[in-house]
Amino acid sequence: MDLSSCSLNSITVRSASLPELLELAGRHGFGGVGLWRDSYAALGAQEAARRTAAAGLRVTSVCRGGMFPQPTPQARAEAHADNLRAIDEAYTLGADCLVMVCGPAPDGDLTGARRQIADGLAALLDAAAAAEIRLAVEPMHPMMAADRSAITSLGEAVDLVERIASPWLGLAIDTYHVWWDIALPDLLARAAAAVHTVQLADWVLPIQGQLSSRGMPGDGHIDMPGFVQLARAVGYRGLIEVEVLSDHWWSRPPAEVARAAAEALSRIPAPN
Amino acid sequence: MDLSSCSLNSITVRSASLPELLELAGRHGFGGVGLWRDSYAALGAQEAARRTAAAGLRVTSVCRGGMFPQPTPQARAEAHADNLRAIDEAYTLGADCLVMVCGPAPDGDLTGARRQIADGLAALLDAAAAAEIRLAVEPMHPMMAADRSAITSLGEAVDLVERIASPWLGLAIDTYHVWWDIALPDLLARAAAAVHTVQLADWVLPIQGQLSSRGMPGDGHIDMPGFVQLARAVGYRGLIEVEVLSDHWWSRPPAEVARAAAEALSRIPAPN
Repeated sequence: MDLSSCSLNSITVRSASLPELLELAGRHGFGGVGLWRDSYAALGAQEAARRTAAAGLRVTSVCRGGMFPQPTPQARAEAHADNLRAIDEAYTLGADCLVMVCGPAPDGDLTGARRQIADGLAALLDAAAAAEIRLAVEPMHPMMAADRSAITSLGEAVDLVERIASPWLGLAIDTYHVWWDIALPDLLARAAAAVHTVQLADWVLPIQGQLSSRGMPGDGHIDMPGFVQLARAVGYRGLIEVEVLSDHWWSRPPAEVARAAAEALSRIPAPN
Repeated sequence: MDLSSCSLNSITVRSASLPELLELAGRHGFGGVGLWRDSYAALGAQEAARRTAAAGLRVTSVCRGGMFPQPTPQARAEAHADNLRAIDEAYTLGADCLVMVCGPAPDGDLTGARRQIADGLAALLDAAAAAEIRLAVEPMHPMMAADRSAITSLGEAVDLVERIASPWLGLAIDTYHVWWDIALPDLLARAAAAVHTVQLADWVLPIQGQLSSRGMPGDGHIDMPGFVQLARAVGYRGLIEVEVLSDHWWSRPPAEVARAAAEALSRIPAPN
């Protein structure tokens, strides 16, 4: 793939400052960056937006809003307020979308958590519309059901998004979370117009915990060329992010990681 | 739950010999045992059957057949032959079913692997019918898609079993693999008659690799009373196995583990 069609997510080079991230993205010809909120916390969203634009890069996603299921009304109100701040930051950054990591059940009640998630998303739609920021629900790998998100499959996420039915609500599709699903092609085709961002990370064995043992695209078991081809075939036109949470790569210098990411993406054939 | 409605799987007390397993199951009043094939390899299936019957225990499952996707015709033939041996052993043991761990894609091609799985299952049905041994496809947690099974969700397993449509082909339902699935209640209801065995293990954090960091029922995030209630409500009448693959519990003496398992099951309310 041409790197101008790709985006470097800040978490991939976690120890880089925002200026370093922008320099690395520019050096390798990435078209954009994906920003976790901690990546611009020191500079602030406004200064981060200025520098990103000056570097000729777009912001493909901001990570994250979400965490809707909470044990008390007070905690729910705090999560809602934080989500409004995240929408505001995404607006300031001109981001393509705000990724929603919807949150686990605080009490083991998945059904109740899913209800809180649907309600919490619906309560953000006016703010999202006003800021023209699309919220992108990220179905997360089922191994994260207990600690990251009760939205555990693409099918569930598509149903949720279709039920709420807003132009400001769609999907964040990360290979790492959904590659195993036999329904992946059908669901992506069905939800094509709602795919707000696409992210790549590979499944490498053995996994070391549920969060951060991901691999560079091509280093693991996922059919990356097939996935990219599929995403383009259903009509996704945005940049493709490389988002690799990895204890291994986090232990390496950011410049080395960015180079590895650039090389990994270059090895994926450009889709037809 | 009354332990006479439960079964102690050999892998839960992995270091116990078969006589020790039978003694432990009898001591706590279990109604049966689930047997991994290595548990009776030293004695042989016939002697294992004799001793199990003498202990007044039934064999609720034999684990495992499967591993259908193979890189060569020769390797496929070997897997088929091994599956016939497993059916024969299950027959000798009078087991309620033979659990099928269907196997991963040897080459990253999940679609091809799934085709080999369907073909491989179909090729065993005559032998299963002749032995009157039900084959129980176990949908496995998606985090095992790369190294244990390309059958990664209950929905996929139910579709597969319905498509082949044989009284000798059904499902093995393990909480650990399917608890996260929003479709679990609907799918269990739909496939109720095909549920050949039900197994319990809990999801405890953090996970240490994808295979053996499971918890005793009640020690983790899964709603065990709810699951047992659901399994009984849809009509499952067999014993409920406790099958806990756990580096932690494997490091403890089998007697301690069996006692912990018995106590864990006793704490689950008897379903209505």
